[in-house]
Amino acid sequence: MSEIGIGIVGGGYMGKAHAVAFGAVGAVFDTALRPRLEMVCATTPASAERYRAAFGFARATDDWRVLVADPRVEAIVIASPQDTHRDIALAAFELGKPVLCEKPLAETSDLAREMVAAANASGVANMTGFNYIRTPATQFARQLIAEGRIGKVTSFRGEMTEDFLADPNTPASWRTSGDANGCMGDLAPHPINCAHALMGPIEAVSALVETVHARRGGVAVTNDDQAHLTVRFASGAHGSIFVSRVATGRKMGYAYDVYGTQGAIRFDGEDQNALWLYSADGPEAERGFRKILTGPAHPDYLAFCQGPGHGTGYQDQIIIEARDFLHAIASGEPVWPTFEEGLAVNQVVAASLASSRAGAWVNVADY
Amino acid sequence: MSEIGIGIVGGGYMGKAHAVAFGAVGAVFDTALRPRLEMVCATTPASAERYRAAFGFARATDDWRVLVADPRVEAIVIASPQDTHRDIALAAFELGKPVLCEKPLAETSDLAREMVAAANASGVANMTGFNYIRTPATQFARQLIAEGRIGKVTSFRGEMTEDFLADPNTPASWRTSGDANGCMGDLAPHPINCAHALMGPIEAVSALVETVHARRGGVAVTNDDQAHLTVRFASGAHGSIFVSRVATGRKMGYAYDVYGTQGAIRFDGEDQNALWLYSADGPEAERGFRKILTGPAHPDYLAFCQGPGHGTGYQDQIIIEARDFLHAIASGEPVWPTFEEGLAVNQVVAASLASSRAGAWVNVADY
Amino acid sequence: MSEIGIGIVGGGYMGKAHAVAFGAVGAVFDTALRPRLEMVCATTPASAERYRAAFGFARATDDWRVLVADPRVEAIVIASPQDTHRDIALAAFELGKPVLCEKPLAETSDLAREMVAAANASGVANMTGFNYIRTPATQFARQLIAEGRIGKVTSFRGEMTEDFLADPNTPASWRTSGDANGCMGDLAPHPINCAHALMGPIEAVSALVETVHARRGGVAVTNDDQAHLTVRFASGAHGSIFVSRVATGRKMGYAYDVYGTQGAIRFDGEDQNALWLYSADGPEAERGFRKILTGPAHPDYLAFCQGPGHGTGYQDQIIIEARDFLHAIASGEPVWPTFEEGLAVNQVVAASLASSRAGAWVNVADY
Amino acid sequence: MSEIGIGIVGGGYMGKAHAVAFGAVGAVFDTALRPRLEMVCATTPASAERYRAAFGFARATDDWRVLVADPRVEAIVIASPQDTHRDIALAAFELGKPVLCEKPLAETSDLAREMVAAANASGVANMTGFNYIRTPATQFARQLIAEGRIGKVTSFRGEMTEDFLADPNTPASWRTSGDANGCMGDLAPHPINCAHALMGPIEAVSALVETVHARRGGVAVTNDDQAHLTVRFASGAHGSIFVSRVATGRKMGYAYDVYGTQGAIRFDGEDQNALWLYSADGPEAERGFRKILTGPAHPDYLAFCQGPGHGTGYQDQIIIEARDFLHAIASGEPVWPTFEEGLAVNQVVAASLASSRAGAWVNVADY
Repeated sequence: MSEIGIGIVGGGYMGKAHAVAFGAVGAVFDTALRPRLEMVCATTPASAERYRAAFGFARATDDWRVLVADPRVEAIVIASPQDTHRDIALAAFELGKPVLCEKPLAETSDLAREMVAAANASGVANMTGFNYIRTPATQFARQLIAEGRIGKVTSFRGEMTEDFLADPNTPASWRTSGDANGCMGDLAPHPINCAHALMGPIEAVSALVETVHARRGGVAVTNDDQAHLTVRFASGAHGSIFVSRVATGRKMGYAYDVYGTQGAIRFDGEDQNALWLYSADGPEAERGFRKILTGPAHPDYLAFCQGPGHGTGYQDQIIIEARDFLHAIASGEPVWPTFEEGLAVNQVVAASLASSRAGAWVNVADY
Repeated sequence: MSEIGIGIVGGGYMGKAHAVAFGAVGAVFDTALRPRLEMVCATTPASAERYRAAFGFARATDDWRVLVADPRVEAIVIASPQDTHRDIALAAFELGKPVLCEKPLAETSDLAREMVAAANASGVANMTGFNYIRTPATQFARQLIAEGRIGKVTSFRGEMTEDFLADPNTPASWRTSGDANGCMGDLAPHPINCAHALMGPIEAVSALVETVHARRGGVAVTNDDQAHLTVRFASGAHGSIFVSRVATGRKMGYAYDVYGTQGAIRFDGEDQNALWLYSADGPEAERGFRKILTGPAHPDYLAFCQGPGHGTGYQDQIIIEARDFLHAIASGEPVWPTFEEGLAVNQVVAASLASSRAGAWVNVADY
Repeated sequence: MSEIGIGIVGGGYMGKAHAVAFGAVGAVFDTALRPRLEMVCATTPASAERYRAAFGFARATDDWRVLVADPRVEAIVIASPQDTHRDIALAAFELGKPVLCEKPLAETSDLAREMVAAANASGVANMTGFNYIRTPATQFARQLIAEGRIGKVTSFRGEMTEDFLADPNTPASWRTSGDANGCMGDLAPHPINCAHALMGPIEAVSALVETVHARRGGVAVTNDDQAHLTVRFASGAHGSIFVSRVATGRKMGYAYDVYGTQGAIRFDGEDQNALWLYSADGPEAERGFRKILTGPAHPDYLAFCQGPGHGTGYQDQIIIEARDFLHAIASGEPVWPTFEEGLAVNQVVAASLASSRAGAWVNVADY
Repeated sequence: MSEIGIGIVGGGYMGKAHAVAFGAVGAVFDTALRPRLEMVCATTPASAERYRAAFGFARATDDWRVLVADPRVEAIVIASPQDTHRDIALAAFELGKPVLCEKPLAETSDLAREMVAAANASGVANMTGFNYIRTPATQFARQLIAEGRIGKVTSFRGEMTEDFLADPNTPASWRTSGDANGCMGDLAPHPINCAHALMGPIEAVSALVETVHARRGGVAVTNDDQAHLTVRFASGAHGSIFVSRVATGRKMGYAYDVYGTQGAIRFDGEDQNALWLYSADGPEAERGFRKILTGPAHPDYLAFCQGPGHGTGYQDQIIIEARDFLHAIASGEPVWPTFEEGLAVNQVVAASLASSRAGAWVNVADY
């Protein structure tokens, strides 16, 4: 099996998650390529060295250009702040190196379009890091819907609710300024991507975006806390998405309800190992939402455990993502969500912000 | 204790529920007035007599005017189709007789306004039959919110989902024509009333109303199956409401999530004896949504059972409503939801339909 | 339709429940006999008169012999303390009057045997008031098991847990002395009856019965707080039952898990409108416990509501029981649980207490 | 940071889990020692080589003696069949090498006693692989109980239910013969260990162990499918444990309910990221079991994810276990569960089998 040298830009929250994932993926899955943790980049030499030692990389740098250019770095994971994504990705594609970039892909749709163009021009593997669709449960939901198991889909309700800023006394921080750090920029990409995965493209949106707590500790909050979206899918189905970082009590409210003519599916990320399926067949008296516990019968579960119901976790999603990225590289086949999807999500975010400002429906294609 | 003669117009689904309720309420609660089942009205003499015998009324009639005018009928319950509500109510108020009218109050806001005017002119007790807010759980939710238990409320998500028309093969019927029988006319009043109860008035709405199955058995469906509403409350809070009669698998999806700065409340009518409360106090590690089982510590539970968690049901909501109506009569104090609330709900329904047609936000006060 | 005069001995918790039930049952169901609330008996003339007025009986008495002997009292409900059950029942049977007696049937198996003999000698209708098996969910569970829906049943886990004496500071009371008031005497009859309903007779038991809080407020507690039972059914299956009145947090822990070769059923009385069914068929990936919400497709639900999932409550169980008692009277056909079942439950209780004292397995037939 | 060479005996289900864990633990946690995957042992050279390549070990062998004796193998994980545990452990301790041995520790109590003696004589780190107690939820439960958060504990209900042999048509296999492979030998150690962790030692047991399906495909089943245990803890509290491999529908029924005088805790391994806590304080009306989602506020969660409720999985438990084993080695402090606990569990298993045969209570100390 060939090795591939991995370089990760960023060593914080997501950088660590990717480092652990690329360290473990070769043992968990039978991957086509075995990753080698080649280099990590952080903002200072000291932090880079700290990450290197902690995560087991061969080398460290505080300059992403060094990492991208290094000949032993053969694939790049971008886990640094959003405003760095474009430059790093373009440099990597320039050198023909595959890129897995964290979500949201870019700060604006225009930047995302540039990145997509560069990715397509280079022809190398590119993925956007929407890890939540990679739980066995959501992969299975996607399969069921695609196979028509719940009939023609008639509506979607999505949610991404957390409460990390629910307390109005939480002081202002980097999170409370900049569209990219607001709830639309930071949280909404997940349920929008989820909606795309399960329902296909969103064509139009009517949004009500708001800053619930206008000031924190005397400092103005300049981005959004919460948003209600109503959406029209290209399929003709309608749906809604609620996104909030002030939804007290919700910790991982990545949830969806999908109704179809012959069944329905419900999921809540706070119990990521269960998928609820209702099937409108069999005797009326025996119908009900069944709580399916993920197991070896579901996508990508068996590699983690032979026993059903024993559970996969957050980190495992990243391992699955790493496996998929390696597969995209080895096979030359695009693995969804590519940068195209990252762009599509950026467009829905931009459209939603515009809709809310205008108080009107807008077409996603215009953003 | 004084008796009061009850006349019920309608002997079907809701007529029966009210008949059972007024028959039982005096034994369940210590009511100020003891109801006497005086007369029931149905569309034919035979059906009226059948209901009389089944429910234990003294007399029967097939003419609601006879019932309203009868001197031993001292209070009137309107459980007949929506297009009869106005005339019966006006006749009753004319004679100074209290009225409990099933929801939705009227077919249009204008008719509802007429009914409110008549109710106010008569000065007698008037109520609209929004029974779902009378579960012990929802009464308690209302109390908690009113007392500030979850802090300042920042968002609302409401839902009323059922699946009685989810199967596209279900043939057309009276349910599939007439705005009043559509999902907005028939189902939406419940979650709108719920939103009012928990959050106060709705000022503006943006709605997307749709007929999911345009034809049934070759017959055109002329009313709506499903609607997504985004709302602005007078309080400044935002919210959304999803209403559907095609939500496969949902049987009694009268559900809400209310988030506040210091807590949150969640409820689903499919488990009506539980209220979920999250309180943002105590050690972080011990926080979570607690499943409160209704019991003697909650409103109107004890009359049904001394043991907590033993459960009240649908019929019990109607008994509580009957108790409240008798109290309004005996005390002369209005008991919410009066006809005013019935009108307010009608307005939100009308505003939603208009918003969806226009594809724009509308103000509820204009409808 | 013929009327039947009902006399209820006892006007407290259960007396009220039966009074409300017999008052409502004729309207809820299409009963063969229409009950007339003829007489209520309580311990003093004043309390009897209070109950009469509150519940709508024609007459009141403080002497159960008067009630039993009254010619207009044609059927008797015993809702007075356990130590009165035998005498009242025997007097009623002597006069050929049907009896619905609250659980537990008697204080001892010997007394219960006497009551069964009298019931059988009289040939009139007799029932023991195990209302919890009458929820639509548990009736449906019973049907499913009887029809082999879950295959051959291989184990049973039952529970009846409440917490009304969980706080050690709750003072001693009538509840804390007398075997009949202990957890085995008072609570255990419910899950034992449930086990019988779902699994058939219990042949042998090994029990560990204990008084968790030996003193309360300086007063000795002389009956039991909690018990763990292991049982062998006549069918060959094994099971366990946990009974507690000190299970902090549990309010209505009437719960069971029944496993079979082709499926399983789970229920918890804290959500009495749901039955969880697992069926070992269909694709492995789609299997899971389904939450069936009771509705018109299930036993005895439709009379309370046309909409599925709208819920029945505690009081509705008693109404169903009243309907069944009236049916037993009118039809001459025994309706389970008769006094025979009351006796069988008494025997398991006695056997359990003996087993615990001996620290050994005992045969139920010996008690 | 010093490295430590890890040798794993066994490359199947648990061998892989440990290999992945030791590969990842250094990146996930800030471990005192950084493990180096030195050697893996399997039954044939080919399978050993396959495991080596898949999991990233430096070398492979088909002789555990080679692995144990190798100077670069400094710590040993035993993940091979039970009948190999004793010999490997004794050889390792002889050489002063720390051992993490999979559960159950030994086939018999006597063998386990020998292993404990050897472990203690060697003075090196020794652990038994009861990974389920290492979920953040169960670690937190243990803390809460130890700190008296639920008061004096009054009862325990444990369960370990799966359904891998529920279908009577599943043919006989290695699983269906040999006490060690029966439900008592294979599954019961988990809930017994859990009971020890939460409640302290078990003193006496009364068990009913059974083979539900006596023959499979014409072949006799010679070990047990299911068992009901009633136990007395040294603390004086009582409890029960249900263990089954034929509990249709249950996939990971590692569940417990612990009741105390001031609260209660409930857990089910099928939703391993939630712990249910009831606290008997605050207003009665606001009490309920709260669903606590594990997060950074709970033990060992933060290393996997910064966001609460995002979930850890099965593999993460093994990573935590690896971290603890490395800590035990580096610090010289025993980390529970040591071999002593492995022995204690073996004793309860042996006592249960003896109790069931005798139909009587037995003392654990006698086994």
